Amino acid sequence: MTVDNAAPDTVPVPVPETVTAGFDDWLADLMGWLRIPSVSADPAHHGDVLTSAEYLAEALRRTGFPTVEVWTDTPALPAVYAHWPSGDPDALRVVVYGHHDVQPADGEERWHHPPFEPRVIDGVLHGRGASDDKGNIFMHLLGVRAHLAATGRTAPAVDLTLLVEGEEESGSPHIGQLLSRHAAQTSADLIVVTDTGIFDADTPSVCVGMRGVVSGELHVHGPDIDLHSGGFGGAVLNPLAELCRLVAALHDDDRHITVPGFYDGVVEPTTAERAATAALPFDESGWLSGPAQSRAAYGEAGWSTLERIGSRPTAEVNGMWGGYTGPGGKTIVPTDAIAKLTFRLVGHQDPAAVMAAVGAFFADRAAPGARVEMHWEGGGVRPLYVDPTHPATVATAAALGRAFDGKPVLFTREGGSGPEAELAEALEAPLVFIGVMTNNDQIHAPNENARVDLLRRGCAALGHLWEELAGLDRDFAQR
Amino acid sequence: MTVDNAAPDTVPVPVPETVTAGFDDWLADLMGWLRIPSVSADPAHHGDVLTSAEYLAEALRRTGFPTVEVWTDTPALPAVYAHWPSGDPDALRVVVYGHHDVQPADGEERWHHPPFEPRVIDGVLHGRGASDDKGNIFMHLLGVRAHLAATGRTAPAVDLTLLVEGEEESGSPHIGQLLSRHAAQTSADLIVVTDTGIFDADTPSVCVGMRGVVSGELHVHGPDIDLHSGGFGGAVLNPLAELCRLVAALHDDDRHITVPGFYDGVVEPTTAERAATAALPFDESGWLSGPAQSRAAYGEAGWSTLERIGSRPTAEVNGMWGGYTGPGGKTIVPTDAIAKLTFRLVGHQDPAAVMAAVGAFFADRAAPGARVEMHWEGGGVRPLYVDPTHPATVATAAALGRAFDGKPVLFTREGGSGPEAELAEALEAPLVFIGVMTNNDQIHAPNENARVDLLRRGCAALGHLWEELAGLDRDFAQR
Repeated sequence: MTVDNAAPDTVPVPVPETVTAGFDDWLADLMGWLRIPSVSADPAHHGDVLTSAEYLAEALRRTGFPTVEVWTDTPALPAVYAHWPSGDPDALRVVVYGHHDVQPADGEERWHHPPFEPRVIDGVLHGRGASDDKGNIFMHLLGVRAHLAATGRTAPAVDLTLLVEGEEESGSPHIGQLLSRHAAQTSADLIVVTDTGIFDADTPSVCVGMRGVVSGELHVHGPDIDLHSGGFGGAVLNPLAELCRLVAALHDDDRHITVPGFYDGVVEPTTAERAATAALPFDESGWLSGPAQSRAAYGEAGWSTLERIGSRPTAEVNGMWGGYTGPGGKTIVPTDAIAKLTFRLVGHQDPAAVMAAVGAFFADRAAPGARVEMHWEGGGVRPLYVDPTHPATVATAAALGRAFDGKPVLFTREGGSGPEAELAEALEAPLVFIGVMTNNDQIHAPNENARVDLLRRGCAALGHLWEELAGLDRDFAQR
Repeated sequence: MTVDNAAPDTVPVPVPETVTAGFDDWLADLMGWLRIPSVSADPAHHGDVLTSAEYLAEALRRTGFPTVEVWTDTPALPAVYAHWPSGDPDALRVVVYGHHDVQPADGEERWHHPPFEPRVIDGVLHGRGASDDKGNIFMHLLGVRAHLAATGRTAPAVDLTLLVEGEEESGSPHIGQLLSRHAAQTSADLIVVTDTGIFDADTPSVCVGMRGVVSGELHVHGPDIDLHSGGFGGAVLNPLAELCRLVAALHDDDRHITVPGFYDGVVEPTTAERAATAALPFDESGWLSGPAQSRAAYGEAGWSTLERIGSRPTAEVNGMWGGYTGPGGKTIVPTDAIAKLTFRLVGHQDPAAVMAAVGAFFADRAAPGARVEMHWEGGGVRPLYVDPTHPATVATAAALGRAFDGKPVLFTREGGSGPEAELAEALEAPLVFIGVMTNNDQIHAPNENARVDLLRRGCAALGHLWEELAGLDRDFAQR
């Protein structure tokens, strides 16, 4: 049975018109939210995280969501839940994910404007959270109104749930608990993550992957006491040299990773995807001299810089120490050497399998006299792989393209890792990304900002999105 | 012209008898010296270093040395100079080298007896300096008296100079200045170093080499700022991984050093030397569980543990650091990585050539995006290579053997480095080692001690030495 929620005597208003008409009020409302320093990392601001949740909840009620709750019934910081049923029991069930907590605003002296006193200057909204993620998640409020106006409906064309958590910037430690406690309220056919961006302000794009990660420490123990390197050196194992040998063995001369089984589950991009990536307007020398502050691109042979970041797994050393590290020399063979390692994962690589493979790799290669142990930190984060030909991905790209004057929408893969894979796994649903952050937004840094025209386009994209998705077969998850 | 200093009506007294008769007084005199905490590393004890020099000077005068001076005319801590001409202008000119400063006695709570209150318990002399080097250098006083008594002479059979410096435990920073300022007083046909030991209490041996060393820091610079390893990892150089790669490249799978030209000047031991080393009563498993506290012998293929320490050069990492070293993880590609490296040298390896070869090795291998620099600390220390078939070495072994009841005297090579090569170079003379320290003496550690019977044998060996050497052609240096 289908219930028609459309009010037949309403004249549909195109999405851009609703967005334009409502934008100034929407922006003022957002700026009020940005005044609340909802820093999840700082316990002194945990009261602000609750205030922030309540502010969003109130704004969602004003927008028309019939059910709005602030969840404080788990160890998680307050999360906001909102639900607006389509009225059609066969409608696609969509869970939108984002967060309302923000990064700390330390480095006060480097902010050109106080971080929690938002203002618009020359078409740019300045303030902590302007982009990540308050600015982006708030777009849903104007977006859903534009959708209703454009379709003449009184309820969205999809069964719409928003889950806006309060501790993403602290690593989403309780997202699993939140979802399992509220399983009935968060069942989904599709997850829409609104916490990423576009390639640049002139190049709309949809993220189709985030890397997973496993982290740990490689410990190499040699002699039980520091030895004089004159009297003993050359005749016993030096744990620093052994650590170097083991870490160096992770890569061959082409910077391929040599750990047997490591690449299991990696999804090789298709020829079409490689061509699309190559077509992105990526300025490598600008990237090197700008954000990367490096003298040369360097990585796995046979892949471009964007592919090395988005499509290829890595083995990285994040820190390393052992022996004498003070001024001058101390001629010792020390007892211990430690390296902090992270492995970024892509496609369908399994964190547990990677941990086992790396552990076995080191154990197999340990030299006589070395005690070699890999200490993993937690269970790792799965990579999030989105099929760019999935109908939901195609529909999302279409919605975004409509908001960017019909420009072609490209696909990108992010190098970082987030809770999205856990979300997709817990909800057993496919996932799409839509958002309008750019590399100029200074997220996680002083002077966070968002271009007002991009926020407006984002509201419009979300105004188009539900209509684009509503036409899809809700069983696509099975394909 | 030869002047006969022998008093013809004196009955010669064999060396052991003089040593036995004079030993108790000699030991009491030594213990008086050990009470003076001549710690060169501690400026608070520099007055004690002067007191120690004056104590030794006074004892040398009592022994009969006609010229005794305390040198305070250079930046060096007080050194003691003593000269006893043979009377024969053709006599071999010998300069004895040793030191009267001692290691700090920290770790007070681990000393079973106060370090500067020497005492003899169960035939063992306890106290800082009992072995290194006061106990050993003081043996010359009773030794020269025994030599005179045995030969019936009133002056030694060699032209005998003692140079006992006051800052060897602080790296002999002014030994070059001391020697050049007093060049006329320190001209030598042979240097006798009394600052080493024997294989063990039952195995007399003569040291025929000390390794040289060059030290420095390998700096690898990657990005100019710490980068997020998710967003950049895999696409730019990671300086920690690069450091590991460069350090690991120093050795091949057989632990041979791969630096081109590194082995230039290494003297391969002869078959006879290898057989002699193999004949040393070395208990490898005892060495592993004891002083080495290691689970396995590990080093260059094709060489025994003793050879790896004494006859082979090494490349060692003494310390290493970079990136994030705190608790938990930080997913960065850091800017810098540093390793402290030392290379031990043997035979005639040239420190400057090794530094150049290693520097070129790293520069040649640096990956794109890496700035690799080797920062050397000073000019290094040459290896000291003694030809075991040199007549002075043979004579020294003979003197030691006589003091050990005719036991065969073996040859050893020390893994450590000292000022001896600089001494040999400055004085342009060959060098021999004679001393009775053992691995049980706890030199440089709490509870330093020396076996009284070994000190007695050492006095006797020095009593025989001048006679053994006097018979040699003083031009042997040219051979």
